Amino acid sequence: MEEIRELSYALDTFYFLVSGALVMWMAAGFTMLEAGLVRSKNTTEILTKNISLYAIACIMYMVVGYNIMYGDGLSSVIPSISFILGASDNSASAVAAGEGSYYSDVSDFFFQVVFVATAMSIISGAVAERMKLWSFLLFAVVLTGFIYPIQGYWSWGEGFLDELGYADYAGSGIVHMFGASAALAAVLVLGPRKGKYGPNGEVRPIPGANMPLATLGVFILWLGWFGFNGGSELKVSDVDSANAVALVFANTNLAAAGGVVAALITARLMFGKADLTMALNGAIAGLVSITAGPDAPSMLLATFIGAVGGVLVVLSIVGLDKLKIDDPVGAISAHGTAGIWGLLAVLLWMEDASFLAQIVGIVTIFAWTFGVSLVLWMILKAVMGIRVTEEEEQQGLDITECGIEAYPDFVQQSKT
Amino acid sequence: MEEIRELSYALDTFYFLVSGALVMWMAAGFTMLEAGLVRSKNTTEILTKNISLYAIACIMYMVVGYNIMYGDGLSSVIPSISFILGASDNSASAVAAGEGSYYSDVSDFFFQVVFVATAMSIISGAVAERMKLWSFLLFAVVLTGFIYPIQGYWSWGEGFLDELGYADYAGSGIVHMFGASAALAAVLVLGPRKGKYGPNGEVRPIPGANMPLATLGVFILWLGWFGFNGGSELKVSDVDSANAVALVFANTNLAAAGGVVAALITARLMFGKADLTMALNGAIAGLVSITAGPDAPSMLLATFIGAVGGVLVVLSIVGLDKLKIDDPVGAISAHGTAGIWGLLAVLLWMEDASFLAQIVGIVTIFAWTFGVSLVLWMILKAVMGIRVTEEEEQQGLDITECGIEAYPDFVQQSKT
Amino acid sequence: MEEIRELSYALDTFYFLVSGALVMWMAAGFTMLEAGLVRSKNTTEILTKNISLYAIACIMYMVVGYNIMYGDGLSSVIPSISFILGASDNSASAVAAGEGSYYSDVSDFFFQVVFVATAMSIISGAVAERMKLWSFLLFAVVLTGFIYPIQGYWSWGEGFLDELGYADYAGSGIVHMFGASAALAAVLVLGPRKGKYGPNGEVRPIPGANMPLATLGVFILWLGWFGFNGGSELKVSDVDSANAVALVFANTNLAAAGGVVAALITARLMFGKADLTMALNGAIAGLVSITAGPDAPSMLLATFIGAVGGVLVVLSIVGLDKLKIDDPVGAISAHGTAGIWGLLAVLLWMEDASFLAQIVGIVTIFAWTFGVSLVLWMILKAVMGIRVTEEEEQQGLDITECGIEAYPDFVQQSKT
Repeated sequence: MEEIRELSYALDTFYFLVSGALVMWMAAGFTMLEAGLVRSKNTTEILTKNISLYAIACIMYMVVGYNIMYGDGLSSVIPSISFILGASDNSASAVAAGEGSYYSDVSDFFFQVVFVATAMSIISGAVAERMKLWSFLLFAVVLTGFIYPIQGYWSWGEGFLDELGYADYAGSGIVHMFGASAALAAVLVLGPRKGKYGPNGEVRPIPGANMPLATLGVFILWLGWFGFNGGSELKVSDVDSANAVALVFANTNLAAAGGVVAALITARLMFGKADLTMALNGAIAGLVSITAGPDAPSMLLATFIGAVGGVLVVLSIVGLDKLKIDDPVGAISAHGTAGIWGLLAVLLWMEDASFLAQIVGIVTIFAWTFGVSLVLWMILKAVMGIRVTEEEEQQGLDITECGIEAYPDFVQQSKT
Repeated sequence: MEEIRELSYALDTFYFLVSGALVMWMAAGFTMLEAGLVRSKNTTEILTKNISLYAIACIMYMVVGYNIMYGDGLSSVIPSISFILGASDNSASAVAAGEGSYYSDVSDFFFQVVFVATAMSIISGAVAERMKLWSFLLFAVVLTGFIYPIQGYWSWGEGFLDELGYADYAGSGIVHMFGASAALAAVLVLGPRKGKYGPNGEVRPIPGANMPLATLGVFILWLGWFGFNGGSELKVSDVDSANAVALVFANTNLAAAGGVVAALITARLMFGKADLTMALNGAIAGLVSITAGPDAPSMLLATFIGAVGGVLVVLSIVGLDKLKIDDPVGAISAHGTAGIWGLLAVLLWMEDASFLAQIVGIVTIFAWTFGVSLVLWMILKAVMGIRVTEEEEQQGLDITECGIEAYPDFVQQSKT
Repeated sequence: MEEIRELSYALDTFYFLVSGALVMWMAAGFTMLEAGLVRSKNTTEILTKNISLYAIACIMYMVVGYNIMYGDGLSSVIPSISFILGASDNSASAVAAGEGSYYSDVSDFFFQVVFVATAMSIISGAVAERMKLWSFLLFAVVLTGFIYPIQGYWSWGEGFLDELGYADYAGSGIVHMFGASAALAAVLVLGPRKGKYGPNGEVRPIPGANMPLATLGVFILWLGWFGFNGGSELKVSDVDSANAVALVFANTNLAAAGGVVAALITARLMFGKADLTMALNGAIAGLVSITAGPDAPSMLLATFIGAVGGVLVVLSIVGLDKLKIDDPVGAISAHGTAGIWGLLAVLLWMEDASFLAQIVGIVTIFAWTFGVSLVLWMILKAVMGIRVTEEEEQQGLDITECGIEAYPDFVQQSKT
């Protein structure tokens, strides 16, 4: 039946577009989360950085990234150019004849392009309050155009990790641990914020300026994740796919819930208070943890996987501070530590998952991303510098980089 | 045609998931609304409370609630366990054979689980600025696991209210008046905030700290309500269902619009100003009012039903203050008073609706919820206390309960 | 196949409703953007104004506007009344017989009603910080009930602009330039804010109070635009339509990205800083620019069209300030200047587009809207006044118009 095939094509395309729109919305979530967790004097800068990196990611991935990742690797830049110049999508007659893919190729591009923006957003929080804006944006050009799609090709582009059996449904490793690896490299080259670690090794809290904003950011991410994971089934138009997508939604939600409760209790036991920032990071860690495999575990197991992520993120944040690795928003822990856990957690239920393949995947993605990023950050540091001056850091990046205060009407106190 | 049946199953499942995601988003709406309407010193606490209650609600409803509500009542906890352990959804062959439901059972669970979170969210605003966080969360465990699903079973679970003909399309009573009833019990046990009512009976306004946040919350709720009401048709895949869902969207929007305009005018006549908080509560009251029956009244009637809700919520807020029932965000009025109106408003157009059935429904839900909640709050009060000390209330719950200020960079003035 | 036709009807209806919900969400985007760009003393007023205008727009468009626009012009108010009184939608049998439209008429109404609210939202930012609230709302009644639908009828209602071949896919002119034209009339009658332009012609910046809020607003608009443009294909249920919708999503996203990058670079070259407000207006300008034709240009061309919009908006904002036309949020530039560019940009790729038809469309819409609005603003000025007093402007509209401060807990400094 041609008409049924057309209708099915339309439904899957629409499902992709709705999912992609939800993932685009995650860019707002990262922006609000990070803007809430930095000090007021660095808020305009992080807002500028986040909307700019999203725009850069979309353009770079269109121009080169998508083709690297889903073409034949680096050799296939030519067809990409035809694509962005307006090559036609599947024709109605091709679909009716059962040829071509079962959804619009452009809808797939739209879904993929918002993923690379997500990966880049992870980094911006970790380097907040001290990195030069334009150096960061230059890094974003390279990461979204080349570093991300090359490793993405290895697994989702049917490269060697895919052949090895590496399992990563929606990208606990390919997107989240990837972003955390590049962030770690950045933080090591950049160093901690002034005043974060005292002379005697003590860790000084630098509270974020706007908790409602940070909380809003997490709710946005939670909602967006239904698109991130839900769309990664790639198909909804038959019973088995629809059932899988439904389970992905339910499990994604429950893993986040498990992460909140576990992080809240862990923080209560460790610090004696109901720590909101830990609860927020618990939600993200739960979401990251389930992302490698939300389509099959039972709801109870999904909740458990998220809860373990919620415990790990608290321990990881505390641990990184002990190592004087200064990550103002906890991105490396929430996306990196929880991402590794998520990649291992699929072994709890996926019969044909292999421990070896997961480890190879983790090591490969980390080594590539951390290594290339480290070199790139060091080049940027040598050529144009990546850190603002001490006076600029003291004054705040809003004035020095953007010339606009985030909250000019309000009297502010400088505690740090 | 098996393929058509599969496609229809897929569309209805996807419709459920999109609707459910929108209802999940309402959790963010309640959080922002409440965080905007409390003082800055109690903001982190209400943020923590709201994200935690959402997580608790999801987990509790999965573990026990859903099965109580849609199983055979309290006796059927066993199948629930198989469900959460990963019992299979409808198979493709069953659907092709016309067996099983016409959408994924798991998508139904996802849709239902966000409803119970909504019910719980209503309560958190009413008890703001003075309740102990952990007592509240313990109450949330019981309400979402037991109190809500038992009454939900009576109507939506095909219990005695359903048999009686009680009409409540998406839950003006089952969700909204339910939440308001539990909130009223809480407020009566808890008492008003210090300084809210003067020694000579005067009502002192305690303005919320962040009006844009409260407004954002209402817009989020408005958007989420399209899922709340729109998804409650339970089916979209044929012409009659699609028409009904479309009317539900249009009427939901217009009832909210009617509520805003009516509340704005009412407040202008009563107070002489364009009172934003009344307009916001008018929107919610309009939405609650139409929720009992958005699928059939004409658009003009829907606007009228919402507008009456908008008038009632202003009168109710003023009235409760006269009774010294202190509800910082107006939740009891917007969800309770408007909920009752909504349940009666279906009599304006629904031919087979019965006044008696509606009254029995209202009384039953209120009596059950208020009664059980009252007992539970009193037990919690006796065992662990539900109210913070006077000093803690003065200092603000952010410091004492969470250890984190919501807006630490800004100089704050303590007016109250 | 009747069943297929029903399913297709259901999918297109659902697609309309999802798109409409996203456009409704744009009301929140405008509200947050404007609330972030005004001073804290005028924030409650702009929040009140925006939620009220949305409500008024929905009601007025239901009562008269929709019928003017899609009926037979002004003569057909009668059928409208039957529609709002609950006239039935397409019946299942009519759809099966291939009669009636291919989606629910009510879903079309819902989609259209949120468009008129968008048009009205554009105006509220331009007149911020000095206009009387109730005069503005009265204007909103007339604009949404009559001024908008009459010009909308000329093109989308199959009037003379449609016959002429005027091309405006989703409303760069019909919605955005329309709103900017009415805003320009308002600003000319109203005059600039006190202190904006110095005695020697210098332009004094009046910074907005809350940059995160403004940024959130732009992200909301960006997301909502997927519904605004994506839904304007009006159909998704066959391969060609699905492909078109997919391209609309991708192009809309890339045009916004192009606008951000171009505005950021332009502002950097002109002012030496990474100007967040210009980047935000660049995103909106990119979105407005592509709105007249997002369904066919290649992705590269869409990015270019958006980027030109991003350059133009910066130049336009600077230029209007030179002319002492005070638009606190840049709405006239982002929606008007970029809207005109978008209407001309379709000539770059649309073979049967005519330069003449586009010019006639631009001139007609501008002349009608600007002219009628100008007269109406002058009548309102004569009858009830449209500008608050100097003392009220100094004190802020929140106290004088609404009686509620937006941020009462925070110590504020009055820089301007």
